[in-house]
Amino acid sequence: MQSPKLDDVAKLAGISKTTVSRVLNNRGYLSEKTIKKVYAAMKALHYQPNDVARQLFNKETKLIGLIFPTIANPFFGQMAYQLETRLFNKGYKVLIGNSKNDPKKEETYLQKLIANQVDGLIVGAHNKDIEEYNNANLPIVAIDRIMNKDIPVISSDNYDGGKKAMEILLARGARHIVHVNGPSDLASPAQERRRAYEEMMRARNLPAVTYTVDFNLSEAEKIKVFRKIFQNNKQVDAVFASNDVDASLIIKLAKEYQKRVPEDLLVVGYDGTDIVRLFKPELTTIVQPIEQIAEAAVETLMDKIAGKETPLKVVLPVTVHKGETA
Amino acid sequence: MQSPKLDDVAKLAGISKTTVSRVLNNRGYLSEKTIKKVYAAMKALHYQPNDVARQLFNKETKLIGLIFPTIANPFFGQMAYQLETRLFNKGYKVLIGNSKNDPKKEETYLQKLIANQVDGLIVGAHNKDIEEYNNANLPIVAIDRIMNKDIPVISSDNYDGGKKAMEILLARGARHIVHVNGPSDLASPAQERRRAYEEMMRARNLPAVTYTVDFNLSEAEKIKVFRKIFQNNKQVDAVFASNDVDASLIIKLAKEYQKRVPEDLLVVGYDGTDIVRLFKPELTTIVQPIEQIAEAAVETLMDKIAGKETPLKVVLPVTVHKGETA
Repeated sequence: MQSPKLDDVAKLAGISKTTVSRVLNNRGYLSEKTIKKVYAAMKALHYQPNDVARQLFNKETKLIGLIFPTIANPFFGQMAYQLETRLFNKGYKVLIGNSKNDPKKEETYLQKLIANQVDGLIVGAHNKDIEEYNNANLPIVAIDRIMNKDIPVISSDNYDGGKKAMEILLARGARHIVHVNGPSDLASPAQERRRAYEEMMRARNLPAVTYTVDFNLSEAEKIKVFRKIFQNNKQVDAVFASNDVDASLIIKLAKEYQKRVPEDLLVVGYDGTDIVRLFKPELTTIVQPIEQIAEAAVETLMDKIAGKETPLKVVLPVTVHKGETA
Repeated sequence: MQSPKLDDVAKLAGISKTTVSRVLNNRGYLSEKTIKKVYAAMKALHYQPNDVARQLFNKETKLIGLIFPTIANPFFGQMAYQLETRLFNKGYKVLIGNSKNDPKKEETYLQKLIANQVDGLIVGAHNKDIEEYNNANLPIVAIDRIMNKDIPVISSDNYDGGKKAMEILLARGARHIVHVNGPSDLASPAQERRRAYEEMMRARNLPAVTYTVDFNLSEAEKIKVFRKIFQNNKQVDAVFASNDVDASLIIKLAKEYQKRVPEDLLVVGYDGTDIVRLFKPELTTIVQPIEQIAEAAVETLMDKIAGKETPLKVVLPVTVHKGETA
């Protein structure tokens, strides 16, 4: 069975196609009788009004694109859920892309989303060097990523998060603290966590050692890097990891190196998603306010779409979830 | 600055709008000179070809809609990621909706996605009673949900999963085994897990006790139900939970009732996502083959879009992750 077309509705209603279009788009003068005829014909034919046709009149597509490294990661999964729910309530649908921090893939998404005429973008992915972001002529909001000077950045207070993690570890007597973070060339406010770590170590004349792992490494590749923490730092007594996935991998690995957590090794993670707090409540972690970040990102994007002035930076407070690992 | 329009490209290239359209859609005879002129003008203006205009010619939108209860849940998050990655490689973009098993919201999504002219749908949400699925005139594939008799269902072998969970618990000597699942009126193949549980209990003259919790209950509401497991079944020595989130909540609660896991209470979960196996490797769980399910769902949908015959049912094998909780 073929889908019914505008033509079929027009024929059944005994009205011109142009008039049916005007009814669908609520344009111009329309008698109640005409409107009723069109809706009766649509109902009889199970006709679904076509947004594509509508868009040609309205310009708005009511589509928002989201680009994240991967929604399989609980932080981005929870964030994408929170964003989508809020955008749905404002009448928007959401197109989603998992860029895996691959600049090529991110560029392709960006081109496709622009081609698809989204009304705006929320980007939690990687690469400041993608030229399209500058030429997009599109309302864009970034989450925890610095894109270019005109794109507002919503993030939590990453310096304070790093400071809170370090205060916990130092108070428990840790001195040989190792840090794990993403590559420092990534234009991410999360590098502020590293800055807090390094400043607090230096202030105490302690050596700062940071291991970097890229987000899109496989578990096996990450473990290869993390082995070096134990092999090259025999005295390591604490790890401050910049996300809970890495913290969990390090806890897994500690067993192999005969380090008991927390007796021999303290571990603090970062993000504190609902899922990690359910599955691993024993992990001490810095909790990002995901709902508030999502709320601020959507509000800022709506303001940009409406042509209003917006702040270039929104920084939200973090909290601590105290478990047993530190 | 206003976005450049097809008009602007046509003017700059000194060519009619129709011809520019034909170049964008690769239709009819076009000289190399014309093509080059159009692309040069597009580049100079940073013009992004508009899919909306294209769709009117091509009919295909290269959009696929996904409807899941919530991608904040690690099973659906990992599934949505696997689906999106595969669809991206086939040239599709993905529209996503979190229905929270709310039939009203699901219906709204469905109408919006149809209106947006998606080329197909993959649905892991709830409700067989939504009339639109029958009138959609659209290629649809369901994951672990029975929609109507014409919609192919991709799932893992839920009966075998239930059987495997029960075999583990019975072999460890458990006799007072309680089951947790979704409401039985849900048209879900996951009810096969319950059937395996009940049949294996009955075959041993053991009483079958199933507690049901709806997917969209809050953590607090679920815990209220799970308390009854401990309050009304003093002798309970094992729980077979139909997902890992519920299994984790029950393990959390067991402490309160002075039940040590696994000494006093064995627990088997279900799903075995990457995330639960990383965060909670000690949980014994039945592992669904998420990548294979995603692969089969995408292949089946592609076949439906191409007008090919497809199987009405694809059932994939489960495996066991042996942790310490059972």
